[in-house]
Amino acid sequence: MAITRLPSAGFSITIRIAVTADASSIGRLTTSVGEAGAIVTALDVVDSDPTHVIVDLTCDTADAGHADQVVEALTALDGVDVRKVSDRTFLLHLGGKIEVTSKVALRNRDELSRAYTPGVARVCMAIAENPADARRLTIKRNTVAVVSDGSAVLGLGNLGPAASLPVMEGKAALFKRFGGVDAWPVVLDTQDTDEIVQIVKAIAPAYGGINLEDIAAPRCFEIEARLREALDIPVFHDDQHGTAICVLAALTNALRVVGKRLEDVRVVVSGAGAAGTAIMKLLLRQGVGDIIAYDRKGALHSGLTGLNSAWQWLAENTNKENYSGDLPGAIRGADVFIGVSAPNLLTGDDIAQMAKDAIVFALANPDPEVDPREARKHAAVVATGRSDQPNQINNVLAFPGVFRGMLDAHAEEFTEEMAIAAARAIADVVGEDKINPTVIVPSVFDSRVAPAVAAAVRAAAHNPSPLPAADPGPADLPEIAANASATP
Amino acid sequence: MAITRLPSAGFSITIRIAVTADASSIGRLTTSVGEAGAIVTALDVVDSDPTHVIVDLTCDTADAGHADQVVEALTALDGVDVRKVSDRTFLLHLGGKIEVTSKVALRNRDELSRAYTPGVARVCMAIAENPADARRLTIKRNTVAVVSDGSAVLGLGNLGPAASLPVMEGKAALFKRFGGVDAWPVVLDTQDTDEIVQIVKAIAPAYGGINLEDIAAPRCFEIEARLREALDIPVFHDDQHGTAICVLAALTNALRVVGKRLEDVRVVVSGAGAAGTAIMKLLLRQGVGDIIAYDRKGALHSGLTGLNSAWQWLAENTNKENYSGDLPGAIRGADVFIGVSAPNLLTGDDIAQMAKDAIVFALANPDPEVDPREARKHAAVVATGRSDQPNQINNVLAFPGVFRGMLDAHAEEFTEEMAIAAARAIADVVGEDKINPTVIVPSVFDSRVAPAVAAAVRAAAHNPSPLPAADPGPADLPEIAANASATP
Repeated sequence: MAITRLPSAGFSITIRIAVTADASSIGRLTTSVGEAGAIVTALDVVDSDPTHVIVDLTCDTADAGHADQVVEALTALDGVDVRKVSDRTFLLHLGGKIEVTSKVALRNRDELSRAYTPGVARVCMAIAENPADARRLTIKRNTVAVVSDGSAVLGLGNLGPAASLPVMEGKAALFKRFGGVDAWPVVLDTQDTDEIVQIVKAIAPAYGGINLEDIAAPRCFEIEARLREALDIPVFHDDQHGTAICVLAALTNALRVVGKRLEDVRVVVSGAGAAGTAIMKLLLRQGVGDIIAYDRKGALHSGLTGLNSAWQWLAENTNKENYSGDLPGAIRGADVFIGVSAPNLLTGDDIAQMAKDAIVFALANPDPEVDPREARKHAAVVATGRSDQPNQINNVLAFPGVFRGMLDAHAEEFTEEMAIAAARAIADVVGEDKINPTVIVPSVFDSRVAPAVAAAVRAAAHNPSPLPAADPGPADLPEIAANASATP
Repeated sequence: MAITRLPSAGFSITIRIAVTADASSIGRLTTSVGEAGAIVTALDVVDSDPTHVIVDLTCDTADAGHADQVVEALTALDGVDVRKVSDRTFLLHLGGKIEVTSKVALRNRDELSRAYTPGVARVCMAIAENPADARRLTIKRNTVAVVSDGSAVLGLGNLGPAASLPVMEGKAALFKRFGGVDAWPVVLDTQDTDEIVQIVKAIAPAYGGINLEDIAAPRCFEIEARLREALDIPVFHDDQHGTAICVLAALTNALRVVGKRLEDVRVVVSGAGAAGTAIMKLLLRQGVGDIIAYDRKGALHSGLTGLNSAWQWLAENTNKENYSGDLPGAIRGADVFIGVSAPNLLTGDDIAQMAKDAIVFALANPDPEVDPREARKHAAVVATGRSDQPNQINNVLAFPGVFRGMLDAHAEEFTEEMAIAAARAIADVVGEDKINPTVIVPSVFDSRVAPAVAAAVRAAAHNPSPLPAADPGPADLPEIAANASATP
């Protein structure tokens, strides 16, 4: 039932091999790797002598087990000596993926005097006298905290703060790459709601926004709500709102493709955690016809008792007909299936039971709720979270532009208007002339996305001044700008 | 009594001025600025027409009030129109002084797959299985938190977290510039000891060290002690230990200059806060003859009651003869005066009463305990914290190298052995052939200092492997290195 994982760069290995220098030896290596199902991407000669050659063979494999199989296959060949195997992903993470760099050269005494003592004292005094100046004169201008307690890391579960750090570093790298935002990982060695709220409040002065990440539901809802209440900077839980924005954008275009209206469709959402809940809330506010939420308790309906408050709210606000059967039954006749749950819950036959021109977003990672190739036989539009399938729905479409816009607008909160504006901006990047069942969202590398999202969010924040993303310079800092010289 | 502040780059302003284009007009500008006591450092023509010229005049002033006087003097000139005044220090701080940059280019899908999902999942799992791997595979390898509650910012007092941020950013910039260390400002919106301890413990997983900064005494002592006990990474309060290291280094060389031994000298320390206490503890362990500690209560001696525990300890361990008089009386006959307190407590006549070949470190910033020009008439060696006087004792001589060494050694704590080794390393950078009464410490820009300090600290950590400071690459990461390929 599980779809076959394809070799990918995420599981690329480099194998150093000594082989006898006969005419066919290299060919036997690449043939062996190919037969083992991996894809050779590079072959470099490292050294040689009259009878041997040492090569570095780099290949994409499907996963760690597959990589082992490839190495075993090579080791079994005659005249082949496998020296060492390096994992290119681990090499890339060595020493961390982000660094802190100075924007000031500090070449000489004068620069030191301005950046640090004695010059810095005046800047401190200016902020002490007018705290709002921190948005102009410090990193708060462009900096976001990526906060996690490591309780729900990717699909891996509760790994704790240290093991979540590679994800938060990666997120910070994406923030800079796609949004020009300085983001810093804050991984917390506590999973206590009160303590997390207290800590984030305490560290907030240095930041212009808080991005909550990989915090388990339902705790994440309370943490987010209490921080929103307490702080004067935007609080955004990407697993909720980033996902919801991207799903709304994709659904907007998918409905265009099939010619249906949101208010007419019945949607089934599998997974009522952070992502599913936020998706459903956003769709309900946008006037969706009906939703059935499905999770470990089955379909959430008003007859269930003992639900946590998030599920209770969903039970009361979805499932108009109080459906209480299984998931395949729920999607029978439904127009849209959105999965943010677990792999392989549905078959192609289940999808065949949906309404005509069905839309299937099977977003569980890395293995979707239904094999997208099977789903595509019966549904009009299929999307996943996978980069090796059409219509990849990936949060990187939303969060860099959303924070870029909020920082530039000096926004004090993240609002539903911003979410809706961001979703529309993402959807609109796919032009009328480009849209089709396999292209409902732009590529994550489409450089138009983040600026469009940022502009939409700024406008929604009622502060529509366009500002350059990469350079938080004097131009957007009016008080100093009025007083600033053009001298270098 | 206060020494005249000299114009400095920390108070540099640029003034845009339109003047009539007669032969003497520019001359009148520069003369006026000179007569007002400022120093012209640049004069750029911005625009001109047949009768007028617009120039940007840049000059160093002594302080903000002096800058205003300079502008007033120019405004009062005939035929002169002052358009705008820009403050180069504020311009440098706009938008913050540090940024977060990605070490991974993220140009394409492959790089994204390795740095983020799906590749990152394996790195997370590796750390979950072996938490020590966080030191190899994340920013913990090279990253230090610069933690402050803003309660004792420079000499400015309790300004709170937001207003302390420019200092912590500057510190982070210095960490990178001089030690290759990634440092991140953590400014806390709380001044409660328990809460600070709890927060720093919670954020620690991302860091390889904690640098406490500008936290008021005596709270700073308890915070430091409890964090040392709780954490498995070094905790270093720069105001204490950085200052103590630099003072010990400077005193070592000053004693060489005058031919005295530490165990024979009597030292008076004015200021028994964070810096003074740490200086005295380090000197006592090094076997100094005697110390008198002087603070708001006067000379600390065993007859005083109601002292906090830090002062109680000092009262019991210093002042062998139980001196209880005033500060000028205390330094009568003393060999060494160390001031880390307040401006202008002593006169040249007071210094004249010290022992022959007296050593005076008047480190209060920006105005020393005694005018160094007066002190120099009577003492053999005089040092201050000022960059415009000989013998500047500045913590940047210590902290970048100390943390570089601790990170490279994977040190779990900061020790007294490290402090002593660092001080000796700083002192030894000034060669036997270079040392004299005006050169007892190296320049802060001497590129030999940080590597020498780092090597000494690594050796003191019993982990003497030399590692490159700037590149935390595979070479120093043995487990991966054994398994790593040379392919790019």
